Amino acid sequence: MTITAPKGFLAAGVAAGIKASGNKDLALVVNQGPSQAVAGVFTSNRVFAAPVGLSREALRDGTLRAVVLNSGGANACTGKPGYEDAVATAQAVAAAAGCAPGDVAVCSTGLIGVRLPMDAVLNGVAQAASQLSAEGGDDAAEAIRTTDTHAKQAVSLGDGYAIGGMAKGAGMLAPALATMLVVITTDAVIESADLDAALRTATGLTFDRIDSDGCMSTNDTVLCLASGASGVAPDLGQFTTRLTQVCWDLARQLIGDAEGASHDIAIEIVGAASEDDALEVARSIGRNNLFKCAIFGNDPNWGRVLSAIGVTNAAFEPENIDVTINGVQICRGGGIGEDRSLVDLAPRECHVLVDLHAGAAAATIWTNDLTYDYVKENAEYSS
Amino acid sequence: MTITAPKGFLAAGVAAGIKASGNKDLALVVNQGPSQAVAGVFTSNRVFAAPVGLSREALRDGTLRAVVLNSGGANACTGKPGYEDAVATAQAVAAAAGCAPGDVAVCSTGLIGVRLPMDAVLNGVAQAASQLSAEGGDDAAEAIRTTDTHAKQAVSLGDGYAIGGMAKGAGMLAPALATMLVVITTDAVIESADLDAALRTATGLTFDRIDSDGCMSTNDTVLCLASGASGVAPDLGQFTTRLTQVCWDLARQLIGDAEGASHDIAIEIVGAASEDDALEVARSIGRNNLFKCAIFGNDPNWGRVLSAIGVTNAAFEPENIDVTINGVQICRGGGIGEDRSLVDLAPRECHVLVDLHAGAAAATIWTNDLTYDYVKENAEYSS
Repeated sequence: MTITAPKGFLAAGVAAGIKASGNKDLALVVNQGPSQAVAGVFTSNRVFAAPVGLSREALRDGTLRAVVLNSGGANACTGKPGYEDAVATAQAVAAAAGCAPGDVAVCSTGLIGVRLPMDAVLNGVAQAASQLSAEGGDDAAEAIRTTDTHAKQAVSLGDGYAIGGMAKGAGMLAPALATMLVVITTDAVIESADLDAALRTATGLTFDRIDSDGCMSTNDTVLCLASGASGVAPDLGQFTTRLTQVCWDLARQLIGDAEGASHDIAIEIVGAASEDDALEVARSIGRNNLFKCAIFGNDPNWGRVLSAIGVTNAAFEPENIDVTINGVQICRGGGIGEDRSLVDLAPRECHVLVDLHAGAAAATIWTNDLTYDYVKENAEYSS
Repeated sequence: MTITAPKGFLAAGVAAGIKASGNKDLALVVNQGPSQAVAGVFTSNRVFAAPVGLSREALRDGTLRAVVLNSGGANACTGKPGYEDAVATAQAVAAAAGCAPGDVAVCSTGLIGVRLPMDAVLNGVAQAASQLSAEGGDDAAEAIRTTDTHAKQAVSLGDGYAIGGMAKGAGMLAPALATMLVVITTDAVIESADLDAALRTATGLTFDRIDSDGCMSTNDTVLCLASGASGVAPDLGQFTTRLTQVCWDLARQLIGDAEGASHDIAIEIVGAASEDDALEVARSIGRNNLFKCAIFGNDPNWGRVLSAIGVTNAAFEPENIDVTINGVQICRGGGIGEDRSLVDLAPRECHVLVDLHAGAAAATIWTNDLTYDYVKENAEYSS
């Protein structure tokens, strides 16, 4: 159940020879319509990759026919030649799909600062175009993997329509080394403006709330394509809910497969004066290396939680803060609470609950622990 | 050559039994005058330890007679009982030194959220008071170590006066798990207001510009005590320069001994529109875990430098940025520059030079790489 579950979509994933490993490394997704509505969310990094610039342009008119994605190279910080490579890729897809180059989005992931092997890319486009099929979703999801240990897919079936998605990467909409790329498809009848509103709501509650290592990629892209092939125009609220479910399913898979992680950590802030306060506090904890190391060591070191809260501008009084880790309230009123030895951090999933006692707002950020394997993967990645 | 190099100071360092190891863990520094001028800089963390609150109060009138410092426990997040422990410690020092409790500063470092063993602390104060001597600086510097692999001291000799300093910790004025504590002494004749101005200038250019892991402690304290015992009133500019030298000497030692680090990294930003821009860019690079892992892996991964720059609000155009690592300009005009294989990252000291081509301002931040040993030390610290 994947991006070809909704009607109107063809996909393929091939080994184009971009990766030295010989694994699948190029995916193609084509929307056969009748509609070609599209919405997208991109990295907010001011240093963004050539394909991000090209895809932003392609989405400007609210329609998109095809997406081509490659692993094995980010095509970022490659200057004008890199942008021309992205344009050439889009042109090749347009020729194969019978559309204008401006109706093609390009996504790339891999090492920054290296040109793509364009012979391999263009051969891969031709090969993928020849293999497009309504059963090609699995191959496409496979082809966009980099350090992902498995392909990530999700689907939600509405009343007469479907939503499918695939993702690669580990982190937030601003994640780890290897970029987050997501393609979501639906056969619902929905205009691009509504699709855009639904996608922004969904990503704001899902991909924007996972933060593996605080590092923002140059290539992050989430695209949502609507074919209208089901003939069903869903209620926008219900559609947004289903879209959010698909995004959360994929986001949770990203956190669960983050590089080198041994814990998936939900940092839930309650009693905040505002949702922004809750998010600021949760992110500060989630990006604190000392806290992340402690969780790796199965150490419920709540002092590091408090010191991370203390550097925020959120409304709180230190002497009112409660911290509960995996059900044990080890910090009460800013001081010593229950016995820390009661906390069991053996499970992969860890729940940190902070009550600021400053209001009624709440938010949760998901992150990972900081491990030997994180350091290993990221020290050795490009060597 | 240490904090007892300037005239008018006595110090001691003893094993009070606070640390399970039996190592020295309590230091006492007494200013015999004739002046008792003092200035201090403290953590800006809103969750601050009991001794920080007490010491801020003690410094309010610009005079201080004594400082007591302990390793083996931070006395942070210990509530009202913890504050009373700090008060009792100051009272014991005051009784021994023959001054008011309000003329005693207290500094603590160690695990957050645990009460201090007060019997040991008070016995240690009595023991240290009985051992105070003008040769006690080395013992004091030894007693404030936690994970420091060696004691950190510095001295500068002016025209007829001296400045001495000792430090513990690894990080910035907002550092790693174990807090930065610094005591600086001088026998110069200087009023507390001038001392305060000199100290703020000095720390702003030194301790504020080292950032080992971006984590801000609850206990960071820098104190500067002036005895006036030399009878020499130095030019304030010259004094500030010497004080800055002592602070930089100590700061560089902190970075050189940061937990688990295998590289000391100077991130120098030039061509910035403002010094604030330069600092923001340098800090963003210095806190980027992917960059820090790459340096650990001796990998000149300049793409991670650019992506860290891209999340700042500094003035720059991505296509104008140059990045030079250890003398090799591997990124030129935001794109591929010299061959990355020319970069030699074997030396411990690493120099990352970024030219933003957006103005004439510059600044340098020192940080460390992210290593297995950093994770190990911080995963196992409190267990």
